Amino acid sequence: VKLHGIIPPLATPLDDRGAIDVGSLRRLVAHQLDGGVDGLFLFGSTGEGPLLSDAERAVVLREVVESVAGRVPILAGVMDATPARVVAHAASARELGADAVVAVPPFYFTHSQLEILSFFRELARMSPLPVVAYNIPVFVKTSFEPATIETLAREGAIVGLKDSALDLAATRQIIVRTADLPDFVVMTGLEQMVDVAVQMGMAGAVPGLANVAPRSFATIYAAAKAGDYARARQEQERMVRLMDIVRQAHSGQSFIAGAFSGFKTALTLLGVIESSRMHAPLSELSVAEAERVGAVLREVGLL
Amino acid sequence: VKLHGIIPPLATPLDDRGAIDVGSLRRLVAHQLDGGVDGLFLFGSTGEGPLLSDAERAVVLREVVESVAGRVPILAGVMDATPARVVAHAASARELGADAVVAVPPFYFTHSQLEILSFFRELARMSPLPVVAYNIPVFVKTSFEPATIETLAREGAIVGLKDSALDLAATRQIIVRTADLPDFVVMTGLEQMVDVAVQMGMAGAVPGLANVAPRSFATIYAAAKAGDYARARQEQERMVRLMDIVRQAHSGQSFIAGAFSGFKTALTLLGVIESSRMHAPLSELSVAEAERVGAVLREVGLL
Amino acid sequence: VKLHGIIPPLATPLDDRGAIDVGSLRRLVAHQLDGGVDGLFLFGSTGEGPLLSDAERAVVLREVVESVAGRVPILAGVMDATPARVVAHAASARELGADAVVAVPPFYFTHSQLEILSFFRELARMSPLPVVAYNIPVFVKTSFEPATIETLAREGAIVGLKDSALDLAATRQIIVRTADLPDFVVMTGLEQMVDVAVQMGMAGAVPGLANVAPRSFATIYAAAKAGDYARARQEQERMVRLMDIVRQAHSGQSFIAGAFSGFKTALTLLGVIESSRMHAPLSELSVAEAERVGAVLREVGLL
Amino acid sequence: VKLHGIIPPLATPLDDRGAIDVGSLRRLVAHQLDGGVDGLFLFGSTGEGPLLSDAERAVVLREVVESVAGRVPILAGVMDATPARVVAHAASARELGADAVVAVPPFYFTHSQLEILSFFRELARMSPLPVVAYNIPVFVKTSFEPATIETLAREGAIVGLKDSALDLAATRQIIVRTADLPDFVVMTGLEQMVDVAVQMGMAGAVPGLANVAPRSFATIYAAAKAGDYARARQEQERMVRLMDIVRQAHSGQSFIAGAFSGFKTALTLLGVIESSRMHAPLSELSVAEAERVGAVLREVGLL
Repeated sequence: VKLHGIIPPLATPLDDRGAIDVGSLRRLVAHQLDGGVDGLFLFGSTGEGPLLSDAERAVVLREVVESVAGRVPILAGVMDATPARVVAHAASARELGADAVVAVPPFYFTHSQLEILSFFRELARMSPLPVVAYNIPVFVKTSFEPATIETLAREGAIVGLKDSALDLAATRQIIVRTADLPDFVVMTGLEQMVDVAVQMGMAGAVPGLANVAPRSFATIYAAAKAGDYARARQEQERMVRLMDIVRQAHSGQSFIAGAFSGFKTALTLLGVIESSRMHAPLSELSVAEAERVGAVLREVGLL
Repeated sequence: VKLHGIIPPLATPLDDRGAIDVGSLRRLVAHQLDGGVDGLFLFGSTGEGPLLSDAERAVVLREVVESVAGRVPILAGVMDATPARVVAHAASARELGADAVVAVPPFYFTHSQLEILSFFRELARMSPLPVVAYNIPVFVKTSFEPATIETLAREGAIVGLKDSALDLAATRQIIVRTADLPDFVVMTGLEQMVDVAVQMGMAGAVPGLANVAPRSFATIYAAAKAGDYARARQEQERMVRLMDIVRQAHSGQSFIAGAFSGFKTALTLLGVIESSRMHAPLSELSVAEAERVGAVLREVGLL
Repeated sequence: VKLHGIIPPLATPLDDRGAIDVGSLRRLVAHQLDGGVDGLFLFGSTGEGPLLSDAERAVVLREVVESVAGRVPILAGVMDATPARVVAHAASARELGADAVVAVPPFYFTHSQLEILSFFRELARMSPLPVVAYNIPVFVKTSFEPATIETLAREGAIVGLKDSALDLAATRQIIVRTADLPDFVVMTGLEQMVDVAVQMGMAGAVPGLANVAPRSFATIYAAAKAGDYARARQEQERMVRLMDIVRQAHSGQSFIAGAFSGFKTALTLLGVIESSRMHAPLSELSVAEAERVGAVLREVGLL
Repeated sequence: VKLHGIIPPLATPLDDRGAIDVGSLRRLVAHQLDGGVDGLFLFGSTGEGPLLSDAERAVVLREVVESVAGRVPILAGVMDATPARVVAHAASARELGADAVVAVPPFYFTHSQLEILSFFRELARMSPLPVVAYNIPVFVKTSFEPATIETLAREGAIVGLKDSALDLAATRQIIVRTADLPDFVVMTGLEQMVDVAVQMGMAGAVPGLANVAPRSFATIYAAAKAGDYARARQEQERMVRLMDIVRQAHSGQSFIAGAFSGFKTALTLLGVIESSRMHAPLSELSVAEAERVGAVLREVGLL
């Protein structure tokens, strides 16, 4: 599996009682594939992955594997607090039909670069699926240094990097340092920077906002790959404006709940999923806030 | 169970292959009880709790319950990434004989105070054991505000607080705000501040360093409770000097690995446990670093 | 000058046009001296020192020197961005009659411990007045490590430390490390911890809240010095409740503007100063917020 | 003055006694103009601006105004702790011949967005020169939010933004929000992202590394402006490798001293300036570290 293009981190639709809403999930997958995406990433942040029980994860992965039917690769996040459980998630992902796993450095405790190396080496040894490293310091709260990522890439412990760090200058250092490794891919998680990512030499993007507008992101990627940066930038700037849907929560939600609930709310307004319900203990948008999400969708012409 | 006094967060001794070392664990528990401690807290940070598998947790808890034989209360940490697993840990802790559970606010995602309230209310509803809240922002990386803690205490969702935040002024706010709740206890996790904690009105302390010197901490607590703050301060300052054992790691370990490995190294030098091995991926002290731990033990007269 | 006791960081009263209000300043100094304070610290954070022009600083220092008339020592903050100006402030403080200067590590750029040492050594060489080091990481945003402070104390470059860091465990490390230096004093800046500071062996406190309630802080200090910790704690807890006046700003002010404006508002309600006006660009409390400050004053019996 | 292109933040050459080295400064200016830069920015971070005395600033600005002789615009940083001094720097910059001033939000205290607005509005009112806002959270340590910047741009209080924040997604938000303001320019301070900045629609860049390699940055800018992103990226990646000169300090310097001293060291090795001396209290590279800077220069073909 060599990853490229737009690989949305799939939201996990819940029904009003908080259970996995399989019908909505099926429609969401269809919405993505119709939009022209190149892969799907389950159990990422947008997918509220760390909050899902093993049973919930299995329901989602089974359904997505069946819906996708081999058309695009499926990545499964394996973030967890305990190293043994990260490995268990990887085994389960293989069994249920994923193509690769995505892992963050260990969190809760603040690990050193040496300990992060040790974690990924052991995971590479134990995982039955290729490992993509995931750098998201806003959640992991530990630096995952370019030199550490280069070492893991060079050893073959990881086949790629999803970089959601805000510091693209550091990402660029990684790109330059791994330029001689033809099979190693770097992808961005930043919704606002997909055209730029292609220009910098990245293989693609994993933008949460693509749940809402997969076709727009496929367009940005295709235009940039074709060298039409003006067209790519135009659509990208529309997506910058669309990102206002993540900033509508003002009634006690965490930023993250507001952001991901913003995606889900947009998907309900577009008729793709049934409910914007978040996994406990995350809270969703109020009715008034949801209306502002609708206003943003209208401003960019999606509604 | 109304907690008071010195309740060490027990280290988890491992053998040289990384498995739970039950013999060392038994000696460590005896070392604590001989030192006069008033409870034991398993699976805290010092116990590398978040890194332990379910099987490892069960081995430890069974052994400690048997060794303690009801002489002091046993608290079990239930920190985990997934809310469903926090509840599962609580059920298992009850089954295996713990007296209370200790839970941090949800981590990885940065939750709002509203979401933290929701998390603890649900945990209180689901847990078969009383819940002690644990404020340790250095790991959880989310503020757990005095007003939130007061609300949970007032609702009876939590029976106490272990506060390992550095900001004792905030702790004092909590003490003043909950002064009318006779059954709610506040304990400090700060090794250097046990005498002060008693003076401020806290019920006790959960100091990692008490693994090494339980009798010293029992002395500080007893002297302070008796109003002999001069004696308490004298022994407390000896413990401030002993804390230098957490600062001897300089060969690529995380601070936390260096600190907890410092405790384990001291316990091996005192003949209590066999090995200073840390749970993967945390790394332990080098031989040269362990020698400096020995030097600190000698300086304060423990060796 | 050997510092001890309660040394309030004096607020800088402004009139409604933003100029130094000398009459209010005179009454504020009298309020402090009547309250039994042991010194005055000008141009600290509470005094909005870094925002004052040279001319404003001179007006304040001249007036306070004249009002105090040698009854207690006067410390002058010399915080500034440019090292040459820190030295110039020290020269001017000497000329205008201060007894010591108070300096933070260099800020804006993030300096290393080596560079902080170099800064204080040069300041000690150039300053005509003794230098008190001021650790306030919330503003300086650089760690000022116990080992660095110990080195400066041992060299005689600094005669004392005002520690406003929240981490009292680190302060305690400094106290223990400098216990053999009889002329070196450590004072806390934490309003909520004055009794504790005395118990830990500190020489006194520099609490902003003492502007409002100097007599209460003098009482806490005297009771704790006399070993009557129960009495000290009782009055200290009253001050913990009074600190709610720093948390009443909810209309766009910075936390710091809300806090210091809270002090000034309380002083206007007590009839000590004329206006709660803050130095530009800091904003003051709204009328509704000021009413809540009044409510807090009434709750603790000051109004 | 409408800014565009490459505007290096000029280093401030010092001689071995720490005084401004006017001869080196003259050669450095010539090196920049020969390299094809479009402006010069004095007293930025790279220029150690906040550490310079008024006299030192005047020497530098006079010399640069004379050397440049009107060929490119000159911007003068006016960062200082006290608002009155920021205004005084602006007056002095005008008098000595600068074309615009560059100001950061107030620092030391952590100001709110409302207070930042107030600061810039007052500066705009008082400054005899147009004001460029400078967002550099690594030093200012306060968020300067896109909405705040948009407001100031829309009011005409600022004519441009130099954005050195790492978060280019936020910069992009600013670009989109101010796209209808034809006279407002956004420039990046990120050395590694100049091609990307042009692609995103920025007017240019203010890269510290351009001190060392002005011609390379002029090439990147020109190629990107011409739509030749492949050529721009190629030279940009060479500059990413050259940035390793900022990471060679390992003997107690702050990161910033190591970085800026890396620039100065490279300039001495290229024969442009005499000494890599830094302004006190910043420390410079050791001889061994300077050799590694030389090795990097050789790797990218500059030596």
